[in-house]
Amino acid sequence: MRDDTDLLDALFEPGSETLRGDDAGLLRGHDAISAFRTRRGGVAPRTIASVEVRPVGGDTVLVVGESAFAGGGRGLQTQLWRRTDGVWRIAVAHVTGRPRAFDRSIWRVLGDPLVHGTGAGPLAGVRVAVKDLFDIAGQVVGAGNPEHERSAPTATETAAALRALLDSGADVAGIAGTDEFAYALAGRNAHFGAPPNGADGTRIGGGSTSGPASAVALGQADLGLGTDTAGSLRVPASYQGLWGLRTTHDAVSRHGVLPLAQSFDTVGWLARSPDVLTAAATVSLSETATDVDDGTLLVAEALLDAAEPDTARAFAAWVADTGRPVRRIVLPDLDDLAETLRVVQAAEAWRNHGRWIGEHPGSLGEDVAARFTAAAAVTAEDEDTARARLPELRARIRDAVGGGVLCLPTVPGPAPLRTATGPDVLATRRATLRMTAVAGVGGLPALSAPLLQVGGAPVGVCLVGGPDTDRDLVAAAATFPTHLSNPSHPLRPSHPSR
Amino acid sequence: MRDDTDLLDALFEPGSETLRGDDAGLLRGHDAISAFRTRRGGVAPRTIASVEVRPVGGDTVLVVGESAFAGGGRGLQTQLWRRTDGVWRIAVAHVTGRPRAFDRSIWRVLGDPLVHGTGAGPLAGVRVAVKDLFDIAGQVVGAGNPEHERSAPTATETAAALRALLDSGADVAGIAGTDEFAYALAGRNAHFGAPPNGADGTRIGGGSTSGPASAVALGQADLGLGTDTAGSLRVPASYQGLWGLRTTHDAVSRHGVLPLAQSFDTVGWLARSPDVLTAAATVSLSETATDVDDGTLLVAEALLDAAEPDTARAFAAWVADTGRPVRRIVLPDLDDLAETLRVVQAAEAWRNHGRWIGEHPGSLGEDVAARFTAAAAVTAEDEDTARARLPELRARIRDAVGGGVLCLPTVPGPAPLRTATGPDVLATRRATLRMTAVAGVGGLPALSAPLLQVGGAPVGVCLVGGPDTDRDLVAAAATFPTHLSNPSHPLRPSHPSR
Repeated sequence: MRDDTDLLDALFEPGSETLRGDDAGLLRGHDAISAFRTRRGGVAPRTIASVEVRPVGGDTVLVVGESAFAGGGRGLQTQLWRRTDGVWRIAVAHVTGRPRAFDRSIWRVLGDPLVHGTGAGPLAGVRVAVKDLFDIAGQVVGAGNPEHERSAPTATETAAALRALLDSGADVAGIAGTDEFAYALAGRNAHFGAPPNGADGTRIGGGSTSGPASAVALGQADLGLGTDTAGSLRVPASYQGLWGLRTTHDAVSRHGVLPLAQSFDTVGWLARSPDVLTAAATVSLSETATDVDDGTLLVAEALLDAAEPDTARAFAAWVADTGRPVRRIVLPDLDDLAETLRVVQAAEAWRNHGRWIGEHPGSLGEDVAARFTAAAAVTAEDEDTARARLPELRARIRDAVGGGVLCLPTVPGPAPLRTATGPDVLATRRATLRMTAVAGVGGLPALSAPLLQVGGAPVGVCLVGGPDTDRDLVAAAATFPTHLSNPSHPLRPSHPSR
Repeated sequence: MRDDTDLLDALFEPGSETLRGDDAGLLRGHDAISAFRTRRGGVAPRTIASVEVRPVGGDTVLVVGESAFAGGGRGLQTQLWRRTDGVWRIAVAHVTGRPRAFDRSIWRVLGDPLVHGTGAGPLAGVRVAVKDLFDIAGQVVGAGNPEHERSAPTATETAAALRALLDSGADVAGIAGTDEFAYALAGRNAHFGAPPNGADGTRIGGGSTSGPASAVALGQADLGLGTDTAGSLRVPASYQGLWGLRTTHDAVSRHGVLPLAQSFDTVGWLARSPDVLTAAATVSLSETATDVDDGTLLVAEALLDAAEPDTARAFAAWVADTGRPVRRIVLPDLDDLAETLRVVQAAEAWRNHGRWIGEHPGSLGEDVAARFTAAAAVTAEDEDTARARLPELRARIRDAVGGGVLCLPTVPGPAPLRTATGPDVLATRRATLRMTAVAGVGGLPALSAPLLQVGGAPVGVCLVGGPDTDRDLVAAAATFPTHLSNPSHPLRPSHPSR
């Protein structure tokens, strides 16, 4: 009742066999449970409403207790207590909190449906989670920031990219969360929390298309509509075992979408299956599509070096398993790509949002505020220099990829743990940008397909093709092998039982 | 996995000690668990993702399993298995299903918030669950029916009664469920299911203001905005241990509210505390309020006879405990009141909705369809006869109540169990209408206050006063004793531990 974490730590058995489960998943071992509890930040006031006790021999007892919350609602705890050396401790706990209306870290507004589509077409029955950057008639754009949500005008039109989905039969399930102004990759919104990772509850879910990713991974929506400037669709797809497609730059209208950095912003989608992703791409992209040549796979050594060793190994084994010939290509220096993207992105982001941020001091979370502060410091000269390099870098990337398919691990490795520190998450961001900047600077389509598993967690294989090969990348990926321990459920890799 | 209910019944230990809990509460005993399972109608396709086994001596084992749902999302089961006479059976189970986006039986649309109020005023911070009969600018009125929701025009204005709450600082949390066209009292919507009873998960929640009642009882909203024609606020208040106020007929504007029967329709509120209810009433009612004389309590013998014996006894004990003198009053015959209300209500309901129902054949649930069919059969002569009696009956009720407070159990008894059959629920409805028709025909305010407990479940004490005594009824009730086993949590009476 007092959320005395030291006492609670002492009440749980030490060692790796101790279990604690709730609707976010099962934690294994005393230390994982303790780390969770420290982060949780307490429980709403409650009293014990009933207790059932079932003795199991002399030194073990199962207790089932109902809690009544002062603010309404009831919870349930099942605990296996064991006496060891005269001390009673909890060996296993299963907790059900009081039912909340909805998970605010995933959603801001939702309904059944929130917006009806035509109900007929290739997307009939598909429920869309819309990143909180897209105009929806009658709604505001929150951009992951409560002040923005309060100050934004009500949209009178629906964004063109969403309109295409509605016209093809899809419904809007709701408006789902984003990192603030889409200017992050972690999915840890300072105001509304980190949406759950649907593949592994102990890890972060990734962003900035964070709410749609969790909604799709958890089955609360079938399609996520998001944006990808420097990885905002690919990163959560990789972290949560989803299919995620960043489209060719300018191939899908961004009309009615809050921009971050127009030179790199793209619209795209997340889905649990390639079929739904293909359907969304088909109704959204123009018919001037280009096929890729996936007979030979293109691999860049620098991108493998950029990945964590376990991930690079898993990726290399996967490449070998495709049985296809591999051709090495050379890309521009990855640090150069990442830095050029960073500077132009920062300049544009500040041009888009600097005034609003100045008018709403203190309204941003710490990480994103720091990023915008850095963006404000980019000089016109910095920007000019970086911008001047873009055409050359873009041309070199496009030349290297040509008509083929560049394959890489989508991100350096599995999603960081939810307990990761800010500096660790920032380091992951930097390492990630070196890999995602290739498609970003290239203006190329990039598919993250859930084909790898590293340490029990999903990692995507990213396919980058030439301009307008968006749809064919999905078709190509569907022919590739999956390296998952539980391939019948690519979304939900099983934890090894201990 | 197969939802083989016979096998599952056999797998659970027989007897009253067997437990099964989930987010709807704890079921005690094999038979209650079996009845739940029969009603549940299966579980979505899933596979076992992991299993942890913790032996507890030779004949008992605790198993914790994670399920992976084919459509995304993960569940958790903890089970205590015991071997008796060589057969392994489950003694205790705790189940967490996959996280759904929201409970569709409670809500249709929701947000954080769905609609901002002014944020300042006596209702600042109060989250309102709005019954799906009230216009909200930009939204449609669903009226508990999916066809109606699809065919209704988008409202351009917000209902006056809701506007008053928003102007006083409240926010709209969401649009919450109703029995179809508010023409029922059970809270069992054929399309969206029965919202949970926040006080006792084994019982129905009551209606027709069903969604707001559950939302408030569970702490997902602080105030329910609803309507009461023949008990639609008082019944769920009584069933779920809430404070519920039906207002004086015509005292609160019904502009922008879908009517059921204008001769009896009223707007009112549900809350967990009398304070929030008083605040809502204060900002919504005109200042021409009248006080009641609650020095003497008025009791009508016929209303006690109308209640179930246990409830009548609990009520009598409560009356005695108030220490106040009691004066018996005589009301018009209750069957006469109920029948007169029924006929006029039916004629008006058909006039309001008959055309729409004719244009949408097959769109209503069975119970409500039957009620409208009966309504269509009311002849003009029946209606004229009943309508002619209304002024006289109303005058006799008002004369009998005068400036005092009529006290009665709100309803015949605790909420029926969720396993109750259709005929049983219909019988409860008929018995209920004999009690609720007094305020309905009288056009009088009626407060249901959560002051009784019968068989471990809440039952309201209803206070009926003269016209415009609405607010003073709440003040009067706050001075009365509560007869609950756990008075510190009037909302959440504890179950007796066995």
